[in-house]
Amino acid sequence: MNRSHNNGELRTSDIGKQVILVGWVARKRNLGGLVFIDLRDRYGITQIVCRSELDSITTGIRNEYILQVEGQVAPRESMNPNLKTGEIEVIASAIQIINVSETPPMIIADETDALEDLRMKYRYLDLRRPIMQQKLIERHKIVRSVRNYLEERDFVEVETPILTRQTPEGARDYLVPSRVNEGKFYALPQSPQLFKQLLMVSGLERYYQIARCFRDEDLRSDRQPDFTQIDIETSFFSEEDIYSLVEGLFATILKDVKDINLSLPFPRYSYHEVMNRFGSDKPDTRFGYELADVSNLLCHNSFPLIADAITKEGSVKAIHLPGKAKELSRKELDTLNELAKKHRTKGLFFARFFGQDEWEGSFTKYLSDADKTGLMEQFQLVPNDLLIFVADPIWERVCNALGAIRLVLGKKYESSSFTGYDFLWVVDFPLFEHDPEMNTYSSTHHPFTRPYDEDLPLLDTNPALVRAHHYDLVLNGSELGSGSLRIYDQQVQRKVFEIIGLSQEEIEHKFGFFINAFRYGTPPHGGVAFGLDRIAMILTNSESIRDVIAFPKNASAVCPLTEAPSNIDDKLLAELHISLRNQK
Amino acid sequence: MNRSHNNGELRTSDIGKQVILVGWVARKRNLGGLVFIDLRDRYGITQIVCRSELDSITTGIRNEYILQVEGQVAPRESMNPNLKTGEIEVIASAIQIINVSETPPMIIADETDALEDLRMKYRYLDLRRPIMQQKLIERHKIVRSVRNYLEERDFVEVETPILTRQTPEGARDYLVPSRVNEGKFYALPQSPQLFKQLLMVSGLERYYQIARCFRDEDLRSDRQPDFTQIDIETSFFSEEDIYSLVEGLFATILKDVKDINLSLPFPRYSYHEVMNRFGSDKPDTRFGYELADVSNLLCHNSFPLIADAITKEGSVKAIHLPGKAKELSRKELDTLNELAKKHRTKGLFFARFFGQDEWEGSFTKYLSDADKTGLMEQFQLVPNDLLIFVADPIWERVCNALGAIRLVLGKKYESSSFTGYDFLWVVDFPLFEHDPEMNTYSSTHHPFTRPYDEDLPLLDTNPALVRAHHYDLVLNGSELGSGSLRIYDQQVQRKVFEIIGLSQEEIEHKFGFFINAFRYGTPPHGGVAFGLDRIAMILTNSESIRDVIAFPKNASAVCPLTEAPSNIDDKLLAELHISLRNQK
Repeated sequence: MNRSHNNGELRTSDIGKQVILVGWVARKRNLGGLVFIDLRDRYGITQIVCRSELDSITTGIRNEYILQVEGQVAPRESMNPNLKTGEIEVIASAIQIINVSETPPMIIADETDALEDLRMKYRYLDLRRPIMQQKLIERHKIVRSVRNYLEERDFVEVETPILTRQTPEGARDYLVPSRVNEGKFYALPQSPQLFKQLLMVSGLERYYQIARCFRDEDLRSDRQPDFTQIDIETSFFSEEDIYSLVEGLFATILKDVKDINLSLPFPRYSYHEVMNRFGSDKPDTRFGYELADVSNLLCHNSFPLIADAITKEGSVKAIHLPGKAKELSRKELDTLNELAKKHRTKGLFFARFFGQDEWEGSFTKYLSDADKTGLMEQFQLVPNDLLIFVADPIWERVCNALGAIRLVLGKKYESSSFTGYDFLWVVDFPLFEHDPEMNTYSSTHHPFTRPYDEDLPLLDTNPALVRAHHYDLVLNGSELGSGSLRIYDQQVQRKVFEIIGLSQEEIEHKFGFFINAFRYGTPPHGGVAFGLDRIAMILTNSESIRDVIAFPKNASAVCPLTEAPSNIDDKLLAELHISLRNQK
Repeated sequence: MNRSHNNGELRTSDIGKQVILVGWVARKRNLGGLVFIDLRDRYGITQIVCRSELDSITTGIRNEYILQVEGQVAPRESMNPNLKTGEIEVIASAIQIINVSETPPMIIADETDALEDLRMKYRYLDLRRPIMQQKLIERHKIVRSVRNYLEERDFVEVETPILTRQTPEGARDYLVPSRVNEGKFYALPQSPQLFKQLLMVSGLERYYQIARCFRDEDLRSDRQPDFTQIDIETSFFSEEDIYSLVEGLFATILKDVKDINLSLPFPRYSYHEVMNRFGSDKPDTRFGYELADVSNLLCHNSFPLIADAITKEGSVKAIHLPGKAKELSRKELDTLNELAKKHRTKGLFFARFFGQDEWEGSFTKYLSDADKTGLMEQFQLVPNDLLIFVADPIWERVCNALGAIRLVLGKKYESSSFTGYDFLWVVDFPLFEHDPEMNTYSSTHHPFTRPYDEDLPLLDTNPALVRAHHYDLVLNGSELGSGSLRIYDQQVQRKVFEIIGLSQEEIEHKFGFFINAFRYGTPPHGGVAFGLDRIAMILTNSESIRDVIAFPKNASAVCPLTEAPSNIDDKLLAELHISLRNQK
């Protein structure tokens, strides 16, 4: 179509030009004999001024009509600093209606009146809102940045199968009945993990894929049945090489998309450190309120929760909230107490400090003078400070409970300072999780994760202490993804299988073709995978992952637009050799 | 890992340098006390020379072991012009075995002994063959070229859902039972058609996606259950704009990937012209042997097939093969005759020309002197020329039969000249297919294809004559893809639905949410989709589409590597509310 400019393009330097614009009517107003139309396209909004000569056509124009407008660029009397084109307007000489529109069921503007259900049902209108289009475009920019960065470094994108085989473990697979192979099913991949490792066996050395993945899990607000992963695998890379690669990748994304210079390298914390200090394996380090250990300090305290924790070699930790003694109400503390209980502790206890001998909180009566002095010294308490404690025989529970409380308090008191992008690595995960009751081991992540070379002797003596070449990348308290070096030595692989108690038959059944591949010259390899949806959500400041997915599903795994999933004719099911189980 | 260079990199200018290489042992030879190892990685092969000091380690080295080699670059005595590194070798000073390999079940080199079944079962070894890696890399380069081209033109890649709703028509869908929504099924998309049109309704204006698509069809050699499409949709583009966009796209791909300059624009043929001249709607124009119409010339001929065709207003066509009168044996002609019959004609007939009155072929006795003179003039016959005829009451059958014969003859006699890339457009398709017996109409492509504006009045008077804004892109006789402008006027849409006999209920049932979307200001839009796998197959000179897919399925839709699809535990099926139909 004839279209000399888009609607985000004209500036004062264009004044006097004859232009042809195309777009949707975002707004129409009558003012003193003139009709003003805000004409919108993907690029912006331009104000069109229609004199009375055009009344015969402007009368019928309504919101969301599509127009082609010819006219001349003129300076604008009342400028609009919120528009890129806010200093000009176009005096229309001719208007053609390209298409009409019924009254849309929602307001099509950055601020809309529609609830999310309606927005998803009319997604094509929701996506007409400039703010939503910008999110899709920004997501695209992220992907573009990823591709350029990796391709400059010789990475090859390889598409791996979507119709593949059921994975041996992990989340639930989506299954696809085969028509040609009666009684058999494909599975949609939870990740390209096996294929990308096989590509390393193939000698491809540097693979990446913006990969569609699928997990049939119960949905949370930040989960979708189908999601997208930035998937990377390398051969002959050390863990340090991978850190550099990934740090450079995110520095490039932030530069390209947000024009922000990240400082590199990202800080690294061991799993134990982040748990101890932040009570989370994906800590938000944009604020303080770190957890402090007071197990030693309070080791003689007789408060039952503390005494029990100490006796059973558990842990007592506290968060120090300067000046907040009177700020947190009893009701808020009750809510935090429930949160602590959700994390399987017996709840929090607290101490309000108003002076040497002025402590409040039912637990404070158990504080000896030594305890009090110790706490004052450790936390450098001043009047009006608040301490929140959790004690439990199990260290992880204390960490997790106080970590959850820390997050609530951080958001309550510190969110005004949440402006930056705090990336960090969590490393030194244990290779195995040990169940002391059953004395069994299971893989913390997956059985192909490579142990530290220097910890190999511990495989025989104390597997619980073996550290894994596994690393998580965290941004502002969200896990963006994780990765590991993989085992390429068959001896080590056998030993790991042994420790987690897999028999030869189980190995063959679960990992058959994959293990076989490793017999023919497997290079040292490792990789990483990041959730693209979550990255896009954070970088576009979106509330929900659904805002950065063009056609998302709701919490019932339904697409309100297409009404997928839907009923299927039994004749079709017969062709697939299946039937519904409980047909009514 | 330490690695100073890759194995495709070293040249005579590097002679004297100390280097560290990593790679797989492609070959090992003992020659006069020296051991020669061809070390292979993704980038190439470098010859390693090991003196006797290294015997203790080289003795144990076998093919496909992974080595790290330290050494010095030296000039090579007998150069190998087939290797990029053929003028140098590396004199090893130290070798470390990084990993070992069992004897692989196939030869890992460009020329392999393995049949395709074995290659697919051990795909990770098949893909270790340099020629296969190059195909994957070249496919990646094609995609990269597409992305760069489209992104420079402001196209936004948007991911559309993989778990979506059953499509109303077309091929069979793959279905995915929903666990959360009992008795309901998702479908995998045959293409993102509906979603990309909805994105135009959203005002995105320029969309693309390298899209995974799925069709549960019976497989042919160039089909896969999951395949990849270069998917494009635009708003406010004319058909000419789309031609330019696509021609620029393929010119860019050919330049980037093959360093070939295509001449633009691509020729355009109407559907009728390619059928008449080449007997195919995807003609291979790299050679001649065009079909010639002889219906008028032979309109008085009494040969029964001709007479029948003429009486019933059918068609008689011929292919002229200069100098081939004695070359095509009776047996070959019999095979071609079978081919003509496969296309639902009564077979071919032929005339061998040796001079004014010397004609051979049983049909030639029906030729009058006028017929003979006419044929000699029309084809400028010289002795030893051959004419092959097909006659039938139905024009399409004649075209298709002779078109198929033309292809066989072209491959037989002209394939030595098949060096270029002959792109062309086929346009002016009819909007409807008319069934004269039932007097019904159906959409030639799909009911959203926009008719020519100047043909709109024919919708009421003679729908069979309405031409569609539909276009196919053909390369060397393969259809790369097709596209169309879409209807955006609701009146026209209603009329088209009427003509193909859809009731309001059927429209609602089949296209409900999609048609609804068009009520709110739909821009004029259109697009195109190309089969990436086929493009990659042609540009990498591959025999099969499977050669450009990392992990393909065989003709039974089975992946021989993973053995997908597989049996699934009944407990899992129960969670999905389905059961097998004929359980034994």
